Amino acid sequence: MSPSPDFTQMWRDLEPLGRSSASGGYFRQPFTSAEREAASWFLEQCRDRGLDVTADEYGNVVAWWRPENASGAGVLTGSHLDSVLDGGAYDGPLGVVSALAAVDVLRDRGFTPARPIGVSVFVEEEGSRFGLACLGSRLLTGATTVEQARDLRDRDGVFFVDAVAEAELPAGAGRLRWADLREQVACFVELHVEQGRDLVDRDAPVGVASAIWPHGRYRFDFGGEANHAGTTRMEDRHDPMLTYAMTVLAANKQARLSGQRATFGRVDVHPNGTNAVPSRVTAWLDARAESEEHLAALVAEVERLARERAGLDGTSVVLTPESVSPEVAFDADLAKRIAGADGWPVIPTMAGHDAGILSAAGLPTAMLFVRNPTGISHSPAEHAETGDCLAGVEALAATLERLAS
Amino acid sequence: MSPSPDFTQMWRDLEPLGRSSASGGYFRQPFTSAEREAASWFLEQCRDRGLDVTADEYGNVVAWWRPENASGAGVLTGSHLDSVLDGGAYDGPLGVVSALAAVDVLRDRGFTPARPIGVSVFVEEEGSRFGLACLGSRLLTGATTVEQARDLRDRDGVFFVDAVAEAELPAGAGRLRWADLREQVACFVELHVEQGRDLVDRDAPVGVASAIWPHGRYRFDFGGEANHAGTTRMEDRHDPMLTYAMTVLAANKQARLSGQRATFGRVDVHPNGTNAVPSRVTAWLDARAESEEHLAALVAEVERLARERAGLDGTSVVLTPESVSPEVAFDADLAKRIAGADGWPVIPTMAGHDAGILSAAGLPTAMLFVRNPTGISHSPAEHAETGDCLAGVEALAATLERLAS
Repeated sequence: MSPSPDFTQMWRDLEPLGRSSASGGYFRQPFTSAEREAASWFLEQCRDRGLDVTADEYGNVVAWWRPENASGAGVLTGSHLDSVLDGGAYDGPLGVVSALAAVDVLRDRGFTPARPIGVSVFVEEEGSRFGLACLGSRLLTGATTVEQARDLRDRDGVFFVDAVAEAELPAGAGRLRWADLREQVACFVELHVEQGRDLVDRDAPVGVASAIWPHGRYRFDFGGEANHAGTTRMEDRHDPMLTYAMTVLAANKQARLSGQRATFGRVDVHPNGTNAVPSRVTAWLDARAESEEHLAALVAEVERLARERAGLDGTSVVLTPESVSPEVAFDADLAKRIAGADGWPVIPTMAGHDAGILSAAGLPTAMLFVRNPTGISHSPAEHAETGDCLAGVEALAATLERLAS
Repeated sequence: MSPSPDFTQMWRDLEPLGRSSASGGYFRQPFTSAEREAASWFLEQCRDRGLDVTADEYGNVVAWWRPENASGAGVLTGSHLDSVLDGGAYDGPLGVVSALAAVDVLRDRGFTPARPIGVSVFVEEEGSRFGLACLGSRLLTGATTVEQARDLRDRDGVFFVDAVAEAELPAGAGRLRWADLREQVACFVELHVEQGRDLVDRDAPVGVASAIWPHGRYRFDFGGEANHAGTTRMEDRHDPMLTYAMTVLAANKQARLSGQRATFGRVDVHPNGTNAVPSRVTAWLDARAESEEHLAALVAEVERLARERAGLDGTSVVLTPESVSPEVAFDADLAKRIAGADGWPVIPTMAGHDAGILSAAGLPTAMLFVRNPTGISHSPAEHAETGDCLAGVEALAATLERLAS
């Protein structure tokens, strides 16, 4: 076993993988060469530490630190290595690197866990390629079935199953199964960069999650009639871009009024020509709310306003919920146990995470957040100070020590 | 010389080239295999008719019917073979096929022109690949310089000059030069499917153009701040999608109020991820107006409203006019001469055409329109009845006979 590199060295290793020299942002879509390189790096780190790597047929990995006398249900920690398009360095990788660094910290201290500790990496957490967030953990836990995944394609039309089949997966892929994992661990702790400014406001480098807001992705297909942009009289048009535009503004206004979140960040226009009225505009609404009732009411109101406008534009609206996640209340006792010792604040989050999927699958789950000075995430400007990252590693190590003793 | 096929046969030849089996629309972007196939088909038709093919270095073609005794400045007719994305069958090809069919009609009647007749095909009329409409005729006439064309790229980043270099051009490309052509012809007549319903309202199968409205393409770059769609508070955002959406609605409203035309049919979002507030939205405004003053006022008002909204959104707006074409008044005497004999109505058009570029370059120019029952164009639903198309061929043949006698 080679000497384990420290947090900073691991961070430097990952830094160049999938980074755009133009924007400084990351493009680590699942099963692309950049993401597979990051996955290989992780396996190498596991080998260097003598961790026992298990993987499922989709590339989800759990690497075990399981000393000879370790027994009983242990603890799982980790995150993901994929990114949104042009994303930040921290969302995902910080949890993976911190998990490895926490193992190093515990070993340096001479700690030997009485229960196994697993370090996990789940694939396609962001849903940036196949459209379904937390796809890896969904497939592992059965929240999404293989049959459902068969229909998923990326923007180029590549099927998820084909991308998996062509990707280089860890040797022995298929050994990892949810039924076994569920017996091997008593809880999951995911460390993540904060994606807001709650910890800045509270002046704390680390916090613990209370719950994930319910959230969903909703595809809006606005249908109209393609026509010449010059010769078609304004009053003869059925322009779906107008219906889309009004829906964008309506979603924003409704979210502001109700204190919830609504975003149209992705749009696909056909034929997308300068001199043609579009025949179709497809757009995705990302909506989040403090309760499932609030979420349903928000989306229903946006849909109502979209239909009202479509009536004026002579266009059509078809709404398809692509993924809707109910509220995830993390294990309160576990959160109290983690936060209690050091007095870390307990805060809610509006972002979905694999932790939410594992929690919904019945595994007691907690999350640690590391302060983000600007709150910016899903952007090249995403950041965390090294000092705060190291505080996160310390908090995670302390948590693992407590839970695996 | 093999017997010349009739209009219907030529139309059938062209029909499958570049047609989407999904939409029934056409994808004949310049220098793609579909468009090159159509170009080859045209050259074959010219060879079959014994026409003398000349071409320039960009693939613009003029094929000459020049009997031994023909002399003096003749007449040029033709159109283009490229299409918008998912376009119709008639926009462009109808003028090319009708030109060949008109030559056949005249020969069948035993007419021998006293002056040369040229049949032309100009490349990239739609600007659907490289963004600049009438690029072929612009380059031929010098309205756009080679240096300006060097910066043009398609959506994949392919440079125009590289696409030309890799395309199969007619043998002897480079023989065609504007200075020569300008001396060889006294006028240009382009036949085109109508892109509105003026001829339907007037109950006429054929009409003659009076003028082309001034029009332009304006790129709007809306800049904001990428961020997480879930965790970023609505009030902390700088979301350029909101500024874009308001600008779409403002452009539509201004055009409606002023009786002009404004369309946002093309948009490009970065990073275009469902769960990310975009950092940038780029969109193209197609605007047309009855006068250059009206056009300038329309665009200025849209820009003012975009900036006003950007102030609220904390975003930025950069407006770049990519191409602005002044009004083209076609040769009034020529139009009267063409329309006079058969009493065809004389109507304006809001669509740009190569005829507008040649007219601006000083060549007396006219256009014939063929009735379009729905007025729909730039769409798979674009249509003209065969009877009307044949009336168009007859009108063009009569015009050529008159002008080349």
